[in-house]
Amino acid sequence: MEGIQQELPVRLKLTIAYDGHRFGGWQLQPNTDTIQERLETALAEIAKEPLRLHGSGRTDSGVHAIGQVAHFDAPDQLTMNPVNWLAALNTRLPATIRVLECEEVANDFHARFSALSKTYHYELSTAPILPPFQAGRVWHLPRQLDPNSLEDALTLFHGRHDFRAFAANRGNETAETDFQRTLRETSLAPLPQGYLLTFTGEGFLYKMVRLLTGAAVRTAQGSFRLDDLAALLDQPPDLPRGKSPLCAPPDGLSLYEVHYG
Amino acid sequence: MEGIQQELPVRLKLTIAYDGHRFGGWQLQPNTDTIQERLETALAEIAKEPLRLHGSGRTDSGVHAIGQVAHFDAPDQLTMNPVNWLAALNTRLPATIRVLECEEVANDFHARFSALSKTYHYELSTAPILPPFQAGRVWHLPRQLDPNSLEDALTLFHGRHDFRAFAANRGNETAETDFQRTLRETSLAPLPQGYLLTFTGEGFLYKMVRLLTGAAVRTAQGSFRLDDLAALLDQPPDLPRGKSPLCAPPDGLSLYEVHYG
Repeated sequence: MEGIQQELPVRLKLTIAYDGHRFGGWQLQPNTDTIQERLETALAEIAKEPLRLHGSGRTDSGVHAIGQVAHFDAPDQLTMNPVNWLAALNTRLPATIRVLECEEVANDFHARFSALSKTYHYELSTAPILPPFQAGRVWHLPRQLDPNSLEDALTLFHGRHDFRAFAANRGNETAETDFQRTLRETSLAPLPQGYLLTFTGEGFLYKMVRLLTGAAVRTAQGSFRLDDLAALLDQPPDLPRGKSPLCAPPDGLSLYEVHYG
Repeated sequence: MEGIQQELPVRLKLTIAYDGHRFGGWQLQPNTDTIQERLETALAEIAKEPLRLHGSGRTDSGVHAIGQVAHFDAPDQLTMNPVNWLAALNTRLPATIRVLECEEVANDFHARFSALSKTYHYELSTAPILPPFQAGRVWHLPRQLDPNSLEDALTLFHGRHDFRAFAANRGNETAETDFQRTLRETSLAPLPQGYLLTFTGEGFLYKMVRLLTGAAVRTAQGSFRLDDLAALLDQPPDLPRGKSPLCAPPDGLSLYEVHYG
C-alpha cells in the first residue's frame, strides 16, 4: 500500500527516580517546586518549545519514586535518540531527580492509561536513633512494633475490599463513589533495623497506602485492635471515608514500579 | 584527707553524626548555618544559658560525619544525666544532625587535644546514573576508574611524608611550616557500585583527604601518572603547597571516627 502517510511524532517513555523530600510532589502547581515542573522545564530547554509530560499518576509532597513512569512526544523536527534524551535531561535536572531509562514506545502507549498496576514501598525504621542520612526517607518508629500484628494487618488488606476508610478527600475533585479496590500483593520484609511494606494493586485511592500503613502501625503498636481494623474493611456501607486511625507521613513512601503489559 | 573541695563541673562527651550536605561546615561562622551553631543553640535552650561546645576539629561545608566528637561542661546547678541530655538534644536538633552517644568523661578530657588519631572515609560511586538518594553523599565518577591504580596511589600515601602538595591554604591563619604527617592506614574497599577509601592519621592538613583523593582519582582515570604522584611526596623541599592535581568535592567525605586513649 502506497500513499502519503502522516508521520506520527516519536513517543518516549521515561523511567524516573526522585528523592521527593524537598519537592512539592509530582504534579504541576503554581508557586511549588514539583517534579513534573522540573522535568518539563528540562524538556523545553532541550526542545526549544514547551512539551507536555504525562505521568503515570501523582505522588504527594515528600513522597519518593524509584520507578515513576511518564511519556512525552518529541517534536518532529528534533532527531535525537533516546540515549541522548536521557543524557540531556539528566544534565539539566537536579541530582535528586534522575531519568533512569528512556525508550521509544508505540504511539498508543500512555503512562497513565496503559498502566496495569503499581507497586509502592513503605519503609519503617525502628532504629533507636535515626541516622541523619535516613532523615526524610523513612518513618522513624523507635517504639516497640510487633511484626506479627504488622503482618496480620497486611494480610487483612490483601484482596478486593471496599477501602473507603483508607481514602482521603482530595478536596478539589468530584467525589469518588467507587471505593472497591484490589490489592494483589501486600507483604512485609524485615530490614536490618526496620521493615519494608510492599503494596501492589491495579488502582489506589488518594493517600490509600499511607492510611493503610498508619493503621497497620497503630495495630503493631498495640493501640488499635485487629478486629477494629477488619471492621473498617468489612462493614463499609455507610462508613464515612478516611476512618483509618492514622495517616503515615510521606517520608517512608516510594512509588517503586509501574507495571505495563 | 578532708576539707572543702571545689566541685568540678560535669564534662560530657558527645558522639555526633550529620549529613553535612546543607550545612556550612562544623565551625561557628556569622550568617552561616553550621553544625556547631545548631548544637550550641540546642545546648543553650536546655541549659538556659550559653554553653561552649568544643569539637575534635572542623569539617568543611558539605562534609559529613559518622562519628564527630565534641565536649562541653554542664552547668553546676543542672542535674541531668547523659541519657536525658542525649534525648533533649535530639529533640531540638534537625533530623540531619543526631547525637549518637552522650557520656560523662574526666575533666581533663578534651575533644580536640585528647584525640590521638582520626579516621576519614571517602566514598566514590561509579554507577552510570547516580541514584537520587546518594546525591550530595558520594563523589559520582561514572568514567572508568582503574582500581589497581587507586590502590597503588593509596599505598604510596601510607606512612610518614611531607604532604605540602596536599595542603590547601586556609587563608585567615598563620602559615603552617610543618607539613610532615603520618598516615597509619590508607585502604581501599569495593562497594556494590564504587569504592570506599579509608584514611587514618594522627593529624591532617587542611583539605588533605580531599586533595589526596583527588590525586588518587586522577591517577585511576589515567590522567596523572603514579610517578608524578610519588614526586609530589618525595621531593617536597621547595615545592609550593597544594600542588595536587585535583581537590575532591566535599560530598564523598565523612569524619568516620575520632580515636582517644
